[in-house]
Amino acid sequence: MPTARMSDIAKMAGVSTSAVSLALNGRDGVSPETRRRIAEIAASLGWYPNAAARALTGRRVNAIGVVLTRPPQYLGREPFFMSFLAGLQAGLTGVDGSVLMHITTSVEEEVATYRRWSAEKRVDGLVLLDLQVNDDRPRIVTELDLPAVVVGSPQHAGGLPAVWTDDDSAIRAAVTYLASQGHSRLARITDHSRMAHTSIRTRAFLSACHDLDLPTPAVVEIDPSNGGTQEAIEAVLRRPNRPTGLLFDVDLMAIAALNVARSLGLAVPADLSIITYDDSLLCEATQPAITALNHDVHAYGAHAARMLLNVLDGEPQPDELDALPQLIVRESSGARGTPTP
Amino acid sequence: MPTARMSDIAKMAGVSTSAVSLALNGRDGVSPETRRRIAEIAASLGWYPNAAARALTGRRVNAIGVVLTRPPQYLGREPFFMSFLAGLQAGLTGVDGSVLMHITTSVEEEVATYRRWSAEKRVDGLVLLDLQVNDDRPRIVTELDLPAVVVGSPQHAGGLPAVWTDDDSAIRAAVTYLASQGHSRLARITDHSRMAHTSIRTRAFLSACHDLDLPTPAVVEIDPSNGGTQEAIEAVLRRPNRPTGLLFDVDLMAIAALNVARSLGLAVPADLSIITYDDSLLCEATQPAITALNHDVHAYGAHAARMLLNVLDGEPQPDELDALPQLIVRESSGARGTPTP
Repeated sequence: MPTARMSDIAKMAGVSTSAVSLALNGRDGVSPETRRRIAEIAASLGWYPNAAARALTGRRVNAIGVVLTRPPQYLGREPFFMSFLAGLQAGLTGVDGSVLMHITTSVEEEVATYRRWSAEKRVDGLVLLDLQVNDDRPRIVTELDLPAVVVGSPQHAGGLPAVWTDDDSAIRAAVTYLASQGHSRLARITDHSRMAHTSIRTRAFLSACHDLDLPTPAVVEIDPSNGGTQEAIEAVLRRPNRPTGLLFDVDLMAIAALNVARSLGLAVPADLSIITYDDSLLCEATQPAITALNHDVHAYGAHAARMLLNVLDGEPQPDELDALPQLIVRESSGARGTPTP
Repeated sequence: MPTARMSDIAKMAGVSTSAVSLALNGRDGVSPETRRRIAEIAASLGWYPNAAARALTGRRVNAIGVVLTRPPQYLGREPFFMSFLAGLQAGLTGVDGSVLMHITTSVEEEVATYRRWSAEKRVDGLVLLDLQVNDDRPRIVTELDLPAVVVGSPQHAGGLPAVWTDDDSAIRAAVTYLASQGHSRLARITDHSRMAHTSIRTRAFLSACHDLDLPTPAVVEIDPSNGGTQEAIEAVLRRPNRPTGLLFDVDLMAIAALNVARSLGLAVPADLSIITYDDSLLCEATQPAITALNHDVHAYGAHAARMLLNVLDGEPQPDELDALPQLIVRESSGARGTPTP
């Protein structure tokens, strides 16, 4: 069924098209009775307000925008993004909103997308992900007059409202747990070193080891797109004073570490405890299953969407802390030095 | 930088706003020299054509729409969707297009979303997923004048162009492989029984067993949202004439089967071979790793997007067969009856 136009409604109501427009846009100039008759006819014809026309007058388009700046081939490997997108959608329940998504590989293209969406009035607002240290994006979207919330720490949100997880406390909890299990030589192995959350975690890791009087730990950054993840992990485990506790940001790297440990004849967890951020089904499927920091990403997405709706409604929106990631202890971590068979 | 408006350009060019409009919309009524001057000023100001206005005149909005009608909480567990969405985006390279995504839990809401998007001119076209047997959606989007391609078999595409994978041949390859390994008592365990691709696979499974002179196999449908996946698999494995080869549609169910086999003291693959559709990283992470039918979902999404662009360009678009899923043999399948230790 093609959508009815105002002229169709006018014909059926026996009034002018401009009277229909006044009535359906809630403006003065038509009698209450005519307004009611026009509304009934419009409803019977399945008339929808044309959002393209509404956009021209500055009203909502019922879409929020998200740009994922990640290698597209890897997105399917990181359950974070689909869970987060599904959460965003869940947060739009009741407002008939959709998610306009763009996937790109550079921040420049991400910004170009925001400019285009702003110029073309494609979205009511944005959710910004994966901010870097000293990121220009909050300033740019502010200048574009695009309402936005940042997913990430307020310290990198450029004054935009932020919904964030306490990466610092989560990392400290993991380090404290490893220390309680007798581990003192730790290493943190990560990628994406330019990301703000990575820098926060690294700082928390170094600081927690310092506070617990542990020796200065190793921090190793791997670019997985260059391959060599296994080799880099092996190099860490061949160092003098080999670390006995490894903390990862990415489940796939932790799985790689299980394989390296096996190839080096190291028992997990007796010789080596392994913990990762970003708990996933993969962490449960391995043997041994992998201890991980677990965060409800679906709820995180819904939280971000609700905050953006508040911003769109013109409500003051303070930064909000999402739930603290929980350490789920599984078989890949435990007391150091249990004798190897 | 806020976007320049036509009135700003008119002021700088010393012409009327309507002259700017004629020039930027490529209409007659301004001299070539004025047109060029206006275009230069517009470019210098970073002017973009307003797509909301373009939509009113029936031009492209550079977005293709996809509705996922799946329980949102499960989407993060199925890497298919994020890989497919990333593939769609890859297929839009060069046209500055984005993906407008909506996630819902009922076909009724999916259809309501198409009606809204059509009325509001939100998308240039649609990619339809997860068609059922005797599905109304192709007819409805055709009546809404929404260009669309179907991802799935042409026999359920209602006359729309379809991009599809040959589920029939893939299932036959898996059954033939199991038979070659000495298995004759097979079972297929699946969910989503209303999906068209599920019915195609079930028919292929029964037909392949028949063609190979195997006993009539079992087909079991599980509703995973009801829980009880493990119990249902256990019931299958406790039947008289227990099957020795299980074929799944979903990696998570195959993992559940590994656990059930372990709890029943069945050796994999000596007593029981396990194969699943939808290869994933999970299939590689388990021990034993799971034999799976592997399909390049990213490429599948890009294929669908390219077909939709052809449709939008008014080109005749025949159905197209995507690559045949490949059987990746891993440790969970093999010769029947290798003696159990």
